[in-house]
Amino acid sequence: MAKINENYEKLPGSYLFAEIARRTAAFQDANPDAKIIKLGIGDVTQPLVPAVVQAMHEAVDEQTASASFKGYGPEQGYAFLRDAIVEADFKTRGVQLSADEVFISDGAKSDCGNIGDIFAVDNKVAVCDPVYPVYVDSNAMAGRAGEYDVDAEAWTDIHYMPTTSENGFCPAIPDAPVDIIYLCSPNNPTGTVLTREQLKAWVDHANETDAIIMFDAAYERFITEEAIPHSIYEVEGAKTCAIEFRSFSKTAGFTGMRCGYTVVPHELVRQGQSLNAMWNRRQTTKFNGASYIIQKGAAAIYTPEGARQVEEVIAGYLANAKVIRDGLEACGLEVYGAQNSPYVWCKTPEGMGSWDFFNKLLEEAHVITTPGAGFGPAGEGYIRLTGFGDPDQTKEAVKRIQAIL
Amino acid sequence: MAKINENYEKLPGSYLFAEIARRTAAFQDANPDAKIIKLGIGDVTQPLVPAVVQAMHEAVDEQTASASFKGYGPEQGYAFLRDAIVEADFKTRGVQLSADEVFISDGAKSDCGNIGDIFAVDNKVAVCDPVYPVYVDSNAMAGRAGEYDVDAEAWTDIHYMPTTSENGFCPAIPDAPVDIIYLCSPNNPTGTVLTREQLKAWVDHANETDAIIMFDAAYERFITEEAIPHSIYEVEGAKTCAIEFRSFSKTAGFTGMRCGYTVVPHELVRQGQSLNAMWNRRQTTKFNGASYIIQKGAAAIYTPEGARQVEEVIAGYLANAKVIRDGLEACGLEVYGAQNSPYVWCKTPEGMGSWDFFNKLLEEAHVITTPGAGFGPAGEGYIRLTGFGDPDQTKEAVKRIQAIL
Repeated sequence: MAKINENYEKLPGSYLFAEIARRTAAFQDANPDAKIIKLGIGDVTQPLVPAVVQAMHEAVDEQTASASFKGYGPEQGYAFLRDAIVEADFKTRGVQLSADEVFISDGAKSDCGNIGDIFAVDNKVAVCDPVYPVYVDSNAMAGRAGEYDVDAEAWTDIHYMPTTSENGFCPAIPDAPVDIIYLCSPNNPTGTVLTREQLKAWVDHANETDAIIMFDAAYERFITEEAIPHSIYEVEGAKTCAIEFRSFSKTAGFTGMRCGYTVVPHELVRQGQSLNAMWNRRQTTKFNGASYIIQKGAAAIYTPEGARQVEEVIAGYLANAKVIRDGLEACGLEVYGAQNSPYVWCKTPEGMGSWDFFNKLLEEAHVITTPGAGFGPAGEGYIRLTGFGDPDQTKEAVKRIQAIL
Repeated sequence: MAKINENYEKLPGSYLFAEIARRTAAFQDANPDAKIIKLGIGDVTQPLVPAVVQAMHEAVDEQTASASFKGYGPEQGYAFLRDAIVEADFKTRGVQLSADEVFISDGAKSDCGNIGDIFAVDNKVAVCDPVYPVYVDSNAMAGRAGEYDVDAEAWTDIHYMPTTSENGFCPAIPDAPVDIIYLCSPNNPTGTVLTREQLKAWVDHANETDAIIMFDAAYERFITEEAIPHSIYEVEGAKTCAIEFRSFSKTAGFTGMRCGYTVVPHELVRQGQSLNAMWNRRQTTKFNGASYIIQKGAAAIYTPEGARQVEEVIAGYLANAKVIRDGLEACGLEVYGAQNSPYVWCKTPEGMGSWDFFNKLLEEAHVITTPGAGFGPAGEGYIRLTGFGDPDQTKEAVKRIQAIL
């Protein structure tokens, strides 16, 4: 008799975006004339830049003749992309990597979810609260999370590290050792960043305890402050304790194209085994490379023209985020993020609950946001807004919010 | 201290294609004038068909304007592709599926590798011998294979089912029950197919024992005999015991584009849980959908024009396979496959070893093949040849082989 993975039965439903959609639809039904603006959107909205489009067209055309047709590519990605990444994303920031430490994939979500394959079940996992749900759910599926406690909205075996305004959104180093630590900077959902000093403390701790840091840098292109590290490898000692995830989703508008990459340094060794070799084995066995056409599109953002074009798009999203942040601060609200992130994390007024503030903004300003409580208990008392919308709509939404606060 | 998945340490190296490349290079170095022809190639070589190319160009162009830009798509795939699959791949064969039983992915290799996520570690796995290595390696990584016995070239906890000319390449139903059974028809590497009656016996056995059949139908488009099932769901009772994997790789030349799909019927329930719901949860947590552009390309093969074009390409590969089969049979060799498959599985003459025959063909005919022993102990005494090469080169290679035998 085939036996199922019983850890799946423990997973609670993920109702956040479904519940937002339900409340939005109910309001729109009752108020058909209301012009709702979505400021909760986590997806990009701007078209692909011309350099990427041109590269993809060229890559499609290559497939029309046997001589230029591409069959199976390297599971780890094409050299043209891995080399460009090493040069542009790391060498420019003082980080030396070799191309075989970079693994191209169909996206950071897949890699964040699949990386657990190379680790034992009995590792103690630490995550920030609020948190991107994939870190937690993928570990729960693997049996590393224990049981889900509905009242606490938490798993019994996961170590949660609250990140709130009280600790400057920097997770505290645990008293009892943990084995696998997820850090995300610039952070989703809070929009805040970890400084070099904060990251150094984590790297030192991980090296002392032989823990592994899973560093999610999917939003690094949004960093505007020069002193903030884009890569954890800018911090001394990180190569012996950290795996880094990168994404073209928000960088180059690739949410629908699917491409990202993961860095596993050769120096990363546990129990005598190279994690680079293990991840290589995992990818060559259970993955067959990202699409050639999409890799060609991704490589185009490393050309001078492509780089300039994606910078403009990102500047637009950052400008939207600043409009939101400035507008909310002008109402006397406590607001975080936006400076190095498309995300704005706003404290609710007068201790209002996340969902209550969500409702107020929906009903009175016809603006959709995301309740912070949906990302974990420590997100209660916050809402998330994003700069991914249309500039004019964003300004209009902020005006409406100002009018009701 | 982070602990690794120690099952990875048990994996033997996969040296088959590396060893072929080493021997080929050594021969070419010693014989620089020899014009080597590769008949071992497992990758497609023909360009994408015009309908697919056009659809991909159109999909790229959609990404140049906000109104038609595609961000995150459904993790399970777009309706336009799932609906087309249900109609063209199943309804035409008398199989009724709903679109939400079809999960689009970046390829059958990923799905074959990842499907184990939804099953417990303590399942007994059965595979054919010879076998596509992903079935075995992915289960070994998950801890279902036991220890690797170097002398036996086998894992202690895997149940191997020899498929040779002695049993007509149909695996025998095990005496002791197994839980998860991998079947591949048309088979890689043997090129043989399972008949409706043979599949029915397996389906009945799986239903009686509550086992699950993992049915790999990546090569179904190559079936030319009308009576051979393209889908396991053509066999009564399969929906309560089988998961089916499909690929656009060989069907439409997508080895470098990356697209496939997996069918998990709603009727498939174990320990009270819907495997469809479990796979959906797995995919929504650890995958973010296949690329929109690639899905648009895949959908184009379901248009009348696209279908006709891919049929022509497949007919060409089948014609090559027939040239090989007929040519080898004319030398008095025992040959299988080719009729419903791009693969030709040839018994070595006079009990010669796989690698010895490989060497003879390389050194005397300058033709590269794949030694059957590389796919498992029961592949010893066979070689695999494929119809994926150039037609003229294929004919030339067969002539050369005939000249030396």
